[in-house]
Amino acid sequence: MKCFLAELLGTYCIIFAGCGSVAVNKLYEGTVTFPGICVTWGLIVMTMIYTLGHVSGAHFNPAVTITLSLLGSCPFSEVGLYIVSQLLGSILASGTLTLIMNITSDAFFGTTPAGSTIQSFVVEIILTFILMFIISGACSDDRAVKVQGGIVVGMTIILNVFVGGPISGASMNPARTLGPAIVLRKFTAIWVYICGPIIGAITGAFVYKLLTPTDKSFSDIVKGR
Amino acid sequence: MKCFLAELLGTYCIIFAGCGSVAVNKLYEGTVTFPGICVTWGLIVMTMIYTLGHVSGAHFNPAVTITLSLLGSCPFSEVGLYIVSQLLGSILASGTLTLIMNITSDAFFGTTPAGSTIQSFVVEIILTFILMFIISGACSDDRAVKVQGGIVVGMTIILNVFVGGPISGASMNPARTLGPAIVLRKFTAIWVYICGPIIGAITGAFVYKLLTPTDKSFSDIVKGR
Amino acid sequence: MKCFLAELLGTYCIIFAGCGSVAVNKLYEGTVTFPGICVTWGLIVMTMIYTLGHVSGAHFNPAVTITLSLLGSCPFSEVGLYIVSQLLGSILASGTLTLIMNITSDAFFGTTPAGSTIQSFVVEIILTFILMFIISGACSDDRAVKVQGGIVVGMTIILNVFVGGPISGASMNPARTLGPAIVLRKFTAIWVYICGPIIGAITGAFVYKLLTPTDKSFSDIVKGR
Amino acid sequence: MKCFLAELLGTYCIIFAGCGSVAVNKLYEGTVTFPGICVTWGLIVMTMIYTLGHVSGAHFNPAVTITLSLLGSCPFSEVGLYIVSQLLGSILASGTLTLIMNITSDAFFGTTPAGSTIQSFVVEIILTFILMFIISGACSDDRAVKVQGGIVVGMTIILNVFVGGPISGASMNPARTLGPAIVLRKFTAIWVYICGPIIGAITGAFVYKLLTPTDKSFSDIVKGR
Repeated sequence: MKCFLAELLGTYCIIFAGCGSVAVNKLYEGTVTFPGICVTWGLIVMTMIYTLGHVSGAHFNPAVTITLSLLGSCPFSEVGLYIVSQLLGSILASGTLTLIMNITSDAFFGTTPAGSTIQSFVVEIILTFILMFIISGACSDDRAVKVQGGIVVGMTIILNVFVGGPISGASMNPARTLGPAIVLRKFTAIWVYICGPIIGAITGAFVYKLLTPTDKSFSDIVKGR
Repeated sequence: MKCFLAELLGTYCIIFAGCGSVAVNKLYEGTVTFPGICVTWGLIVMTMIYTLGHVSGAHFNPAVTITLSLLGSCPFSEVGLYIVSQLLGSILASGTLTLIMNITSDAFFGTTPAGSTIQSFVVEIILTFILMFIISGACSDDRAVKVQGGIVVGMTIILNVFVGGPISGASMNPARTLGPAIVLRKFTAIWVYICGPIIGAITGAFVYKLLTPTDKSFSDIVKGR
Repeated sequence: MKCFLAELLGTYCIIFAGCGSVAVNKLYEGTVTFPGICVTWGLIVMTMIYTLGHVSGAHFNPAVTITLSLLGSCPFSEVGLYIVSQLLGSILASGTLTLIMNITSDAFFGTTPAGSTIQSFVVEIILTFILMFIISGACSDDRAVKVQGGIVVGMTIILNVFVGGPISGASMNPARTLGPAIVLRKFTAIWVYICGPIIGAITGAFVYKLLTPTDKSFSDIVKGR
Repeated sequence: MKCFLAELLGTYCIIFAGCGSVAVNKLYEGTVTFPGICVTWGLIVMTMIYTLGHVSGAHFNPAVTITLSLLGSCPFSEVGLYIVSQLLGSILASGTLTLIMNITSDAFFGTTPAGSTIQSFVVEIILTFILMFIISGACSDDRAVKVQGGIVVGMTIILNVFVGGPISGASMNPARTLGPAIVLRKFTAIWVYICGPIIGAITGAFVYKLLTPTDKSFSDIVKGR
């Protein structure tokens, strides 16, 4: 129960701050700047990992939850409630932003492809691959410098938004895209931001698995045991 | 006694550097830039936590002191002196800035609402909620990665100023607003920056309490025992 | 075997993100900004060190691999495969970037001297000297604060790109330059980025050796025993 | 002996990178940006602390060396050689920069007051006060989170340059100012950058001493025993 509340609150704070920085930048003549948006997204993810990691594992992202369940690190029975909590947090945060700011269509804080849909789809796959590859190596692996885990993941968000932000919006997270889309009723290319992150995250985690010491058979690894 | 001196010196350094970056940016043609102001505020809070955390607990903020006293982490008898020290530090720092720079009315380094008063009030509540929620999870909770506490809180200041700076000034701290207001004699919407942070901080800490393992009754929790 | 795959994947991610930020900045009207490019390069190196340091030692750079082999920290027999893996990772990442973006000749993401060739050669030597000097002191030395190693090296990349980026492109890594050069077929002053980093890295490591406590003779130290 | 070489090399790297970013910014149309200069100064100090802290204590600053000797943390007999090493490192780095770049008088990378001399003098005192106060609390105090010491000091440099850079150049270090002044033969208001940092550093350390637990008499404390 505390896990689900933590996921909801954590995702709420992430979407409020991250999408908030996007909206504020658009409404206040670019004061925040694009680098400022990148930094805000990364720092809120980092701080939430250190705030709630010991409560819920700090997923805040359906693609991460699905991947960890395939790896056996999160019980299948909890996946549904984790995702519902994350989506609810994202919707509530998007709603809060529309209440306190005058969100015109220019100040849209969801994600849509800047170029072709397929380009954004590939970019979302690669960015989430990098994210989940890093989570696997720097947080989940027993050999990792665990104390730095949150900093490493937060900094990954910053750099991924720098690279992919101008192309796909660098969502890497279905909840990050779905919340604003539902509240602002704009669903352009929504499948890109659901399938891309999930495919990327699963691939990233399983490619990392090839690097871990193991005496399991390959089929066991693929099955995530 | 050493606690109060530490709070005074810490708040002095925070207000000198933070408000200093605001004033310097206005007086020197925007050299610092808005992202630079955000970074300065966050880093001075972070460095002061590592410098004085082991002396006074590193509050530097009446809203934090009041909340921690309600949680039983700070004796009620010390609350008054903590707040007086923080205000004194803020006033002295604001005075220093007016002495070394030619603070015109354009270079005002206090906080006032950019839009409606109620909007800034809500933003101050949410930002301080996030700040105190993070302090509770990443610093006070026994399960937290304690060594990163100061970094996490400093980074929270950076991201909150990115999001809320253009709207309310992102004070999150009655002492941060009162010092410059008293020295520069400008008290516009001062209640926003006293009530908002206090409401937000108390809410943030008690919402986090719902996530901690406990065998206390709910009424005990609400009473902060 | 896992070492080589780790070096390939790590270098892939570094070149994809770093060169990606350069290309995106050129194709999307400077959105990323030069400071954003510096930060992206530093953070991807930092995150990859924490992700793969415990697998392969996290070289991602032929100049580092060669230097460590001279110091006896990496078996001579593995040097060749390490370098091949790093080059392959860089080539694959450069290829990926050209597939997902329309890389015009304006969006070249390799490195070429902005001024004279000799100036860039000297700058590459000094920057890689600083990099390897820091790796030696903050990561390899037994007295170092090991847990911060990845952060320190990542931050070194950021500052070196700030200083040397506008002059030589701040490669510090033959793989970083060779991958894009091969894929985009532009080999201007390529020797600068092969010889410069190797000379700088070896010098940096051996100068640091003068500072370590030792009962070896000077000739032993010079021979890297 | 190794201490002095470490101080020389560390100061060389700091001045090369820090002053280098200033000169590059002036010669390459402001590419680095003022925030980039702030970040470069802070990160090179941070990385040098982690690289050489275990060798020489990582002063790199005559004001810090003098203060630590008064506190009894550095033998008086070594003060002279420490300062000579730091000055030599700064002069050599300034010389290197003039050799690899065409340093016009516009690209001066020393420090001079932007406004009145007395204003810069006061700013240098306060900035170095903050720096040494933080070093005392976050690095020297036994109760500090020692592992973060280098990060804290580096971040202090960043924020101090943001605040004081546009006014006095935010030297905080006689070696930082003297090296470029000697090489470029420009000694405007040089006393500001020798006396200011020394006064500020001594004050900062002794004010911090008031906060440490002690059973010594006040006169012992003032005498630095």
